[in-house]
Amino acid sequence: MKLVLKAIRAMTRGIPVLLACFFSIPCAADEGMWLFSQLPLERLEKTYGFKPDAQWARHVMRSSTRISTGGSGSVVSPDGLVMTNHHVVEDILQKLSTAEKNYLEDGFFARSRAQELKCPDTEINILWEIEDVTARVKKAGSDASDPGAAEQARRAERSSIEKESKEKTGLHSEVVMLYRGGQYHLYRYKRYDDVRLVMAPEVAIAFFGGDGDNFEFPRYCLDVSFLRLYEDGKPAKVTDWLRWSSRGTRSGELVMVSGHPGSTQRLNTVDHLRFLRDVAYPSYLELLYRREIALQQFALKGPEFKRIARGDLFGIENSRKAIRGTLGGLLSPATFDSKLSQERKLQAAVAADAGLGASLDDWERIRHSMDASRKFREEFIFLEGARAFWSTLYRNARTILRLVEEQAKPSSERLPEYRDTALPSVRMRLESPAPIYPALEKAKLTDSLTHFVKVFGAEHPYVKLVLAGRSPAERAHELVSGTTLGDAAARKKLLAGGQAALDQLDDPMIDLARSVDSYARASRRKYEDLVTSVRNEAYGRISTATFAVTGTGVYPDATFTLRLAAGVVKGWKEGGRDIPDHTKLGGAWKLASERAGEDAYTLPKSWSEARDKIGADVPFNFVSTPDIIGGNSGSPVINRKAEVVGLIFDGNIHSLVLDVVYTEEQARAVSVNAEAIIEALSKIYGMDVLVKEIIGTRK
Amino acid sequence: MKLVLKAIRAMTRGIPVLLACFFSIPCAADEGMWLFSQLPLERLEKTYGFKPDAQWARHVMRSSTRISTGGSGSVVSPDGLVMTNHHVVEDILQKLSTAEKNYLEDGFFARSRAQELKCPDTEINILWEIEDVTARVKKAGSDASDPGAAEQARRAERSSIEKESKEKTGLHSEVVMLYRGGQYHLYRYKRYDDVRLVMAPEVAIAFFGGDGDNFEFPRYCLDVSFLRLYEDGKPAKVTDWLRWSSRGTRSGELVMVSGHPGSTQRLNTVDHLRFLRDVAYPSYLELLYRREIALQQFALKGPEFKRIARGDLFGIENSRKAIRGTLGGLLSPATFDSKLSQERKLQAAVAADAGLGASLDDWERIRHSMDASRKFREEFIFLEGARAFWSTLYRNARTILRLVEEQAKPSSERLPEYRDTALPSVRMRLESPAPIYPALEKAKLTDSLTHFVKVFGAEHPYVKLVLAGRSPAERAHELVSGTTLGDAAARKKLLAGGQAALDQLDDPMIDLARSVDSYARASRRKYEDLVTSVRNEAYGRISTATFAVTGTGVYPDATFTLRLAAGVVKGWKEGGRDIPDHTKLGGAWKLASERAGEDAYTLPKSWSEARDKIGADVPFNFVSTPDIIGGNSGSPVINRKAEVVGLIFDGNIHSLVLDVVYTEEQARAVSVNAEAIIEALSKIYGMDVLVKEIIGTRK
Repeated sequence: MKLVLKAIRAMTRGIPVLLACFFSIPCAADEGMWLFSQLPLERLEKTYGFKPDAQWARHVMRSSTRISTGGSGSVVSPDGLVMTNHHVVEDILQKLSTAEKNYLEDGFFARSRAQELKCPDTEINILWEIEDVTARVKKAGSDASDPGAAEQARRAERSSIEKESKEKTGLHSEVVMLYRGGQYHLYRYKRYDDVRLVMAPEVAIAFFGGDGDNFEFPRYCLDVSFLRLYEDGKPAKVTDWLRWSSRGTRSGELVMVSGHPGSTQRLNTVDHLRFLRDVAYPSYLELLYRREIALQQFALKGPEFKRIARGDLFGIENSRKAIRGTLGGLLSPATFDSKLSQERKLQAAVAADAGLGASLDDWERIRHSMDASRKFREEFIFLEGARAFWSTLYRNARTILRLVEEQAKPSSERLPEYRDTALPSVRMRLESPAPIYPALEKAKLTDSLTHFVKVFGAEHPYVKLVLAGRSPAERAHELVSGTTLGDAAARKKLLAGGQAALDQLDDPMIDLARSVDSYARASRRKYEDLVTSVRNEAYGRISTATFAVTGTGVYPDATFTLRLAAGVVKGWKEGGRDIPDHTKLGGAWKLASERAGEDAYTLPKSWSEARDKIGADVPFNFVSTPDIIGGNSGSPVINRKAEVVGLIFDGNIHSLVLDVVYTEEQARAVSVNAEAIIEALSKIYGMDVLVKEIIGTRK
Repeated sequence: MKLVLKAIRAMTRGIPVLLACFFSIPCAADEGMWLFSQLPLERLEKTYGFKPDAQWARHVMRSSTRISTGGSGSVVSPDGLVMTNHHVVEDILQKLSTAEKNYLEDGFFARSRAQELKCPDTEINILWEIEDVTARVKKAGSDASDPGAAEQARRAERSSIEKESKEKTGLHSEVVMLYRGGQYHLYRYKRYDDVRLVMAPEVAIAFFGGDGDNFEFPRYCLDVSFLRLYEDGKPAKVTDWLRWSSRGTRSGELVMVSGHPGSTQRLNTVDHLRFLRDVAYPSYLELLYRREIALQQFALKGPEFKRIARGDLFGIENSRKAIRGTLGGLLSPATFDSKLSQERKLQAAVAADAGLGASLDDWERIRHSMDASRKFREEFIFLEGARAFWSTLYRNARTILRLVEEQAKPSSERLPEYRDTALPSVRMRLESPAPIYPALEKAKLTDSLTHFVKVFGAEHPYVKLVLAGRSPAERAHELVSGTTLGDAAARKKLLAGGQAALDQLDDPMIDLARSVDSYARASRRKYEDLVTSVRNEAYGRISTATFAVTGTGVYPDATFTLRLAAGVVKGWKEGGRDIPDHTKLGGAWKLASERAGEDAYTLPKSWSEARDKIGADVPFNFVSTPDIIGGNSGSPVINRKAEVVGLIFDGNIHSLVLDVVYTEEQARAVSVNAEAIIEALSKIYGMDVLVKEIIGTRK
């Protein structure tokens, strides 16, 4: 998989319930996505003889970056150079490209800082401080009469804490729910909203092997890119950055990954997993299938159509392959048997001891919340999740409407995504200069409106309201042709004009968003009160009981916040065959010649001409056992000295099931070797200044 | 669209209800798919001053062929040469190809009769005689107590009529239900089961423009191929064949199409159309989407994977594009408004006059049958329709089991597809030497089993029965690896051994088919009795009333039996722009250079080298107004003298809605011009002997 968070973001836009935040008790040696404030020191020392001190942890934390396109990264020079994956910046390359200049296809190479390009609507956050605010948040919800009200109260309190923190420290502040409400931590970030593109190779080598080789190994991908943090229009001077290792890594050596895993479901109840298996994942897959075909059809119209559909298509292909693999794992009865036996043990303990704080009713409540979800989820997903409206223009329309409406309320009473601390990001996305292509918007909207009719039926009042007597294609045409929201300046002006400007506007997309919004909000409220809150309360009690039974040494399910994972460089056995732990640069040319004539295996010109210049034996990609998942894309792989030895870009096909259960027998993280990056930068791309910046500080 | 019947066959395998056989009252000048026994003589004379006599009709009828791969064709020489589309023989080319010799890619050219290749499991039927047996069939069902029993009785009678006819005449005999039971006609066919491949061009020019240009115009496709009928190991000497026109056709001229339209739904009730719009088509589309992705994923593994998946993938792409277009048309409120107003008029007449033989209750019955269908259809489609088992091996297993079981009963009591007259075709398919690829079987079966779990849930008893404690992937592997049914000789031997051989056999695929079969049969019986029969009875009465109201001059909905359609060569207006009525050969090279680098627009070597040899102004493809639909693929386009002027291969995007309503404003049939065929055969392929055979008899 390309471990970017798009899959999860796309999904959670529709199904926030999948962001089930819970915790896991590690069974395997290398299991665990550890909080930087609760590193498994004993475990690391026992398994690897490694005991990082507080300074080490803080240094790595402050050198790790979260990128708003849905991935991770690391600062690798004192001048704010950030390394991440090519596929993490793909969206940026797409937005910067035009029919004449295709950075995705051709790559981008700033040969001086003056050539570095500003990335549209991109921000990078670096976790700076962690504070436990569990007591304060929990107290806020303790007097509420029902789960829904308790959740609202806690949300308001989180918003207040964030606001106070921002005012006090100036740092971007987020209260993160961990262990499904077992703990709440305040994360303070250094936020950079001026991010520039430094270097990205051609997609042909970044994604060599294409969709077919995605999630596979052996691999030969230079899935790397470099960005730079800017402050006040100048490269940011940073205090913490990761140095480059001078010897790379070897088989069996300890490696660690510092990054932002997006979402896991490891300790979901068995009923909840069944729901994912039978309802959530299959219906999400069907969405991906239809959207993939719709985009393929659009792309067939010609090269420019193909170019503008490419960003959406890549994201969908990646999610589709990921979910297909995860579902394949969930459909194995063995997965369920092991989950069921774990669950029975915990239930027996709970049944025997009322003092554990949970009861068997909590499992029942979760089961009932699944039934409720079946009833309410489609309305919620299609209206509030906007699955009916697969359109950037529609998203813009709704964001403007809501932003104006929500800003009139106190921050703590708003929809959480419009609270004060979130507004800079909202505005940045809204004012993005990235192009919006009307033809693509029409094709996407036609498809999603057709899907809407499919699910609700053509005679449903919502459908009649939305289609207004037209067919999906006619309606999409009317909406996209009639709106002015494709123009960034128009959006900015509208936003500045506030409610008065909105009231005067005659824009079909705004009108549509307005007519849908009260139903969308109602569907959200219903879903949150009757499904999510009920479930979270029950999970909260089960989590308390699990703490009591198993003691400490557990880690929370992933929440797209910073974690450390540890493991070793190691191949695996597949059908009796040994899969080696790394590939070499020379293998790329070999594979290209074996698969000659296939687009996905065609090397870019820069590579096909460089065969003799390159060290054929330099390690290219390698596999290791750390516990990672979507969102970890771009995470640095480091050694004990916190030096960069590689760059996470994928997991193998066996790792897909890590969403729900960790296994180190065959699941592996896939990385670009640090040495290969330097080799390519200097010998293929002639990026000597960049190489010097990266390895110049090497000890 | 490629007008082959695959879409409909695939669909009707699952949803026979879509083969709604009804009739239509022509409103537009060129509407109508006319029975050869009831040609619209008055209409043809009035509109075109053309009055074909009985000899003309019989000659055209006996020169028209139905091909078992799902298309039409025509005999074009006294030595049994048959012209059809390349895409009608695609399945044959696929079955004859190997990793070393790819006839689909490279084309096939027999330069002497000795080189002509036997086509696996292919039969061609030529309609020879038509006899009205309405009274006898209707009488058989008249004493039954309920719709289900009446249907069974009529079926038994049809089977008896067929058997008698076959014994008396030696001709293959089929009783066809027309006007949804308003009439029954006995069709006697000359059947040829030795069919050989003579010539097929490279797919790159047959399907120039690929999936993107499918259903579009202007087009530049040489979608033609030639087969030959053999009798007693020698080319068949035929009495009727179509001569080749020496001047082609011109704008505005009358053209006629003699072919086998597969299925239309033109006079479905509005409720029935809603069902198609809201349930049947969308769920079929979802099936196609998931299968298209599954095959694409399989094909990505390498060139040989791509080659063996290609046949399935082509069929699915074509169906997907067709259904997507049809659904797009159905989603237009205008389509429904016109249907509704027609229906209201008929209902008013029925309400006012009880003597018309129908009542408003009949519409209610049809509506209720849709509700029943919603309840029963998935069980029916997944078990009896075998949607859960996307596997040739499974189909073989079930056919063998059922064949042995059914043969023990009298023909008239069997499942209709195993009645005596149908057995030669059943055996031919079962004993086909065409290769079955285990890797492809596993991928397809894994996907369909996953789909089965999605629809029924992993805990459903059917699913547990089928998966036997495995995941879909594990089960597919076990079934495909364990069966011997991939070997044609093994199947033949098993069939010869009958029940005793089956009882002794230890074959997981046979075991699976056996364990599913009683549930599958029950689901079919339930669906036929409670949905199809109820609906057919009601439609029968509505059809009687319509006859009474509108008089004669109506044609039945398509049933993949021979029809004649008439119209003119004519372009259309599209968004204010005039689309010309034909393209020229030179346009192919022009388009190839405009779209250079795209696979779908890359001419085969034979063409790219022949530019200077070819008459650039020879008409290549043309559009006309005759009323055609899927199944018409390969139909000859003829003039008044019954001479070949073209070859149907597609309809434009506007023609997709012809499934449910005829319109001649923009809907057009797309044909290869007869002159272009000769030009290419002689100047590009050097097939001089074939050219001489075709035009040698020209007057």
